[in-house]
Amino acid sequence: MIRFESDYLEGALPEIMTRLNETNFVQTAGYGNDPYCAAARDKIKAECRSDTADVHFLVGGTQTNMTVIAAALRPHQGVLAAETAHIGVHETGAIEATGHKVLPLSAPDGKISAAQVEKYVLDHRADESFEHIVQPAMVYISQPTETGTVYSLAELRDISNVCRKLDLLLYIDGARLACALAVEGAPTMADMAELCDVFYIGGTKHGALFGEAVVIIRDELKRDFRYLIKQRGGMLAKGRLLGIQFDTLFTDGLYYKVGEREVALAKKLRSAFEKKSIEFYYPSPTNQLFPVLTERQIEALSENYSFSVQQRTDTGTVVRFCTSWASRDEDVDRLIKDIERL
Amino acid sequence: MIRFESDYLEGALPEIMTRLNETNFVQTAGYGNDPYCAAARDKIKAECRSDTADVHFLVGGTQTNMTVIAAALRPHQGVLAAETAHIGVHETGAIEATGHKVLPLSAPDGKISAAQVEKYVLDHRADESFEHIVQPAMVYISQPTETGTVYSLAELRDISNVCRKLDLLLYIDGARLACALAVEGAPTMADMAELCDVFYIGGTKHGALFGEAVVIIRDELKRDFRYLIKQRGGMLAKGRLLGIQFDTLFTDGLYYKVGEREVALAKKLRSAFEKKSIEFYYPSPTNQLFPVLTERQIEALSENYSFSVQQRTDTGTVVRFCTSWASRDEDVDRLIKDIERL
Amino acid sequence: MIRFESDYLEGALPEIMTRLNETNFVQTAGYGNDPYCAAARDKIKAECRSDTADVHFLVGGTQTNMTVIAAALRPHQGVLAAETAHIGVHETGAIEATGHKVLPLSAPDGKISAAQVEKYVLDHRADESFEHIVQPAMVYISQPTETGTVYSLAELRDISNVCRKLDLLLYIDGARLACALAVEGAPTMADMAELCDVFYIGGTKHGALFGEAVVIIRDELKRDFRYLIKQRGGMLAKGRLLGIQFDTLFTDGLYYKVGEREVALAKKLRSAFEKKSIEFYYPSPTNQLFPVLTERQIEALSENYSFSVQQRTDTGTVVRFCTSWASRDEDVDRLIKDIERL
Amino acid sequence: MIRFESDYLEGALPEIMTRLNETNFVQTAGYGNDPYCAAARDKIKAECRSDTADVHFLVGGTQTNMTVIAAALRPHQGVLAAETAHIGVHETGAIEATGHKVLPLSAPDGKISAAQVEKYVLDHRADESFEHIVQPAMVYISQPTETGTVYSLAELRDISNVCRKLDLLLYIDGARLACALAVEGAPTMADMAELCDVFYIGGTKHGALFGEAVVIIRDELKRDFRYLIKQRGGMLAKGRLLGIQFDTLFTDGLYYKVGEREVALAKKLRSAFEKKSIEFYYPSPTNQLFPVLTERQIEALSENYSFSVQQRTDTGTVVRFCTSWASRDEDVDRLIKDIERL
Repeated sequence: MIRFESDYLEGALPEIMTRLNETNFVQTAGYGNDPYCAAARDKIKAECRSDTADVHFLVGGTQTNMTVIAAALRPHQGVLAAETAHIGVHETGAIEATGHKVLPLSAPDGKISAAQVEKYVLDHRADESFEHIVQPAMVYISQPTETGTVYSLAELRDISNVCRKLDLLLYIDGARLACALAVEGAPTMADMAELCDVFYIGGTKHGALFGEAVVIIRDELKRDFRYLIKQRGGMLAKGRLLGIQFDTLFTDGLYYKVGEREVALAKKLRSAFEKKSIEFYYPSPTNQLFPVLTERQIEALSENYSFSVQQRTDTGTVVRFCTSWASRDEDVDRLIKDIERL
Repeated sequence: MIRFESDYLEGALPEIMTRLNETNFVQTAGYGNDPYCAAARDKIKAECRSDTADVHFLVGGTQTNMTVIAAALRPHQGVLAAETAHIGVHETGAIEATGHKVLPLSAPDGKISAAQVEKYVLDHRADESFEHIVQPAMVYISQPTETGTVYSLAELRDISNVCRKLDLLLYIDGARLACALAVEGAPTMADMAELCDVFYIGGTKHGALFGEAVVIIRDELKRDFRYLIKQRGGMLAKGRLLGIQFDTLFTDGLYYKVGEREVALAKKLRSAFEKKSIEFYYPSPTNQLFPVLTERQIEALSENYSFSVQQRTDTGTVVRFCTSWASRDEDVDRLIKDIERL
Repeated sequence: MIRFESDYLEGALPEIMTRLNETNFVQTAGYGNDPYCAAARDKIKAECRSDTADVHFLVGGTQTNMTVIAAALRPHQGVLAAETAHIGVHETGAIEATGHKVLPLSAPDGKISAAQVEKYVLDHRADESFEHIVQPAMVYISQPTETGTVYSLAELRDISNVCRKLDLLLYIDGARLACALAVEGAPTMADMAELCDVFYIGGTKHGALFGEAVVIIRDELKRDFRYLIKQRGGMLAKGRLLGIQFDTLFTDGLYYKVGEREVALAKKLRSAFEKKSIEFYYPSPTNQLFPVLTERQIEALSENYSFSVQQRTDTGTVVRFCTSWASRDEDVDRLIKDIERL
Repeated sequence: MIRFESDYLEGALPEIMTRLNETNFVQTAGYGNDPYCAAARDKIKAECRSDTADVHFLVGGTQTNMTVIAAALRPHQGVLAAETAHIGVHETGAIEATGHKVLPLSAPDGKISAAQVEKYVLDHRADESFEHIVQPAMVYISQPTETGTVYSLAELRDISNVCRKLDLLLYIDGARLACALAVEGAPTMADMAELCDVFYIGGTKHGALFGEAVVIIRDELKRDFRYLIKQRGGMLAKGRLLGIQFDTLFTDGLYYKVGEREVALAKKLRSAFEKKSIEFYYPSPTNQLFPVLTERQIEALSENYSFSVQQRTDTGTVVRFCTSWASRDEDVDRLIKDIERL
């Protein structure tokens, strides 16, 4: 069985394992106060073209989202997000557990627009019962989205402008950011640092054992952030493990290369499905593909491959195939051949 | 200006004020441990045909909802509710502030169905990522709904059956319960006590100064409930004020009479609108009416009456008129005349 | 049985009942947007010698404390308070339920000092693990304290100075404020408005049916406060009831007169105990008295009076007698006679 | 500089690194549903002599504590713990952030007694205001404690008996459990499984990169626990990393050997201090030593060693030295020589 159901099926990139092995007996202070974290922070700030950003390392995505959102909002405030947003549907209510409502916006392709945000917020402010309703105070987007789609630089700029005009925080979840960075027309990390208030760079899904790097741009979010990491259970005792991994990912452009390869492999797979006139439920240019298959096709592919089953539609069943840093060329080629045979 | 925008525009029923005046200097223990509360509890239990129900008195509806829901759910559990539910849209995220997500179901007329509940819960349980998703554990309905509609006994029985089959708690918000009780075919209080796990009887909107009576049917919800009232800020020092009011409301059927009169007055108003071929946005048989008016009609009625403006639709603007225990016959008649003149 | 166990055993001051009866059928907007609340706000601002304070009315003390504290603090911040503070020991963890730790300081007589606050905060800031510890961000004091003692103007000024120097919020719980205002050397309401960031004026324990008036001095605490009241279940639908009561309490100095009478009656009782060489557990100059009685004395007084039993000490049992706005002179005199007979 | 300030200064045990390297490219399902976690669970259950325990793996201690406690308690319930307990003083209010109060008991040596627990709970239940006070519902102890001391089997049995008699949950934090297991007279893991309701086996401080294994004994705590892990941000995507580490730790008794060596090294250090008549602030038989040093001694040792400074006392300054799995014999010997020279 060759697995394609997610991009966190293996351990870590060889470069990361090597560094972890090499440094294993070096003694450092705990909780991220070590030279590896310092070096990783500097590299990330350089990528962001920012001298003033704060960079913190956390273990996982849900933990990161709940820490950032709870740190930023007052109790009566909520966060606008696509109806498909990870924080709204796949974190077991972690955001609500910190006291905040996720306010869903319709998003057939996983993306929300500046116009939607503006309408929601202006409607709220015009409502005569506004104090009886959760106040929208932050916009959460994922880049790429949970459905694999990508915000263009122009789209992100529009959302950013609306947020600034309306005094909303803009937060970008980059769990699979490397893939978005590999798509033409997508914002760079420097663009993101310019346009949003806080974002995170995903490591777990791009070849780290684990780890997400939070980049805080807006000054008032920086204050006391380490207290908040600790309070939400996200302060790793051996914080160096995060520093070592992100330092490696941002050495010699490794993070970008991982994203490029994932996207290139996905493109090959996409073509194979398209040649068979198999449609996609979401128009994803990144490493997650959502073909709509028949029961017969699912059965055929299930013999040798694992993939995740998402939902039934009128025309078939939506499944998900992911390429990852660890996908082997020969496995992808074999899968392509089996798709051709469907 | 004659006000019709809500049903909490005046003080309290004369019968209640009389009792409050009469008892003003009687000394009693605080926090609901007084003879008036005891008497009111007994009367409510009798109405519910239940010897074993626990009855508690709280000050307001949001407070009651957050106390009941937070008492009943474990942290990873959420509450299913109509998309129009008060807890979802008009309580400033009070439920989320206790850590729980409100899970909205579509409800064009404000009501949800047993089939919707069943589908949602079975889909959740069948999802391969179910542990990453908030667990639906309670169903919240309002009787009457926020849009004035009423669940029939058969509808409530269906929902109750699904809840028992699937091990879900059923909670009924009766902020305007007296009105529902006045509608033919609606469940009685005894029916509700038989079919749900916990419900509340609204006083604030039926002529009390304030106050809601929570009736707990299911045994495990009874445990330590007074701790939870205190923790959420709902334990009134002079708890007797609640007992006196509910004792009065359930003496000589006053609560029912209030609901009947409110509904009767609303029916007269409804007929007046209908005669003018004015449509209603929601098919409410209770004391809230939602006619869709033109700007000219709104302007004309605004001269002498206040009412609340809800939303714009393709055909006009939805407004709300409420009748209340304090609506004077002559004011309703005058409004009817002015509607006829539109 | 004549009751002295608390100061919330009866209904409300006759002046308040009269105003509630008179205004019962006047129609007003809900949620505190009515002329009675506006008038009460103006009167309170005048007492505080402040044009810019915001005044909000809530129903009860626990509700008020949790709303103010949760509105003011970020998630990692806690509130310093006497070990005897109401928020720490008698609110069923309401503050913790909003996510915040109450940080207790030793307080044999119920009061904390500026020096204690300063030491705690400087120690925290100097701790090498400070980010692993709740950050002290607010100081909560009660005036009078839960043990009946009173902060002098000089003591309050010292605490205020430390708070400003160390950038801490200062919040004063005035559940029984009228009594403190009747004690010589205590700060006036204008002093409090000058020295703290937010405080509340208690109505429930000084002759209102219920109600506490929050006075917000510091600008950043004012923002969106009504959202927070609503979220915590504290926004009374018929908000006018609070306005009417506070307007009455601050007409013709009624609030002050209530406090003065309560303190005067307590003084008479205190003398009676002292004449019998009965000691007091706390040196309270206000309306709560904490004599240490023998079992025999308790038994004797229990025949005709109710009072609350607090704790056993080496020398006897601490009990509490409260005088209130509703205490009748003849009842106090009779109790004094019975004390003399002990 | 040789570091002794904590036991999480290096990476992981060589056995663990080897297994991580060997398995790096094996594909497995995520979130702990992999064969390594299954194997580790079986080994731990065998150590606990329990077929029915549930075993879950989380990343860190604060995360584990907040997840377990929030899973077990209802909103009005709190957890009794030593005043020195990690949950009370070094987790930035993580427990309070889930809504629960930590109820401190005095503990000069870091341990609490069955008698203290019993008195607290019986006093609570006898208090006439008990519903206004947080309900004690769980006892939290650390084994070894934060001050290095160890509960004997008899002491643990007493606490367990009181908990069962009074219907309290008993939770043991085993962040440094291997050290306690190496102390004579301490309960074994099987004893703990017999006597408590839930405990965790610490990996982070005994040579894992990270990881804590929660062992749930009581049935009602098992229900839905994975939802709760996910909600609190503790579900590691590559959960296998935890399984691999714990499987290694419980192969060939590695976990026990680590603890024995840590304790043996600490014993040597302790003797060295004792020979110099240096006193210890806490009587720790485990890997944390708390000698009370003079400023001159601190200065002398600081030249070549790092250690943590805890607090000043009348006789000197309390510091902490930790031995760890990674402490080299030659470094400990060198430190001993330098202690002899003080």
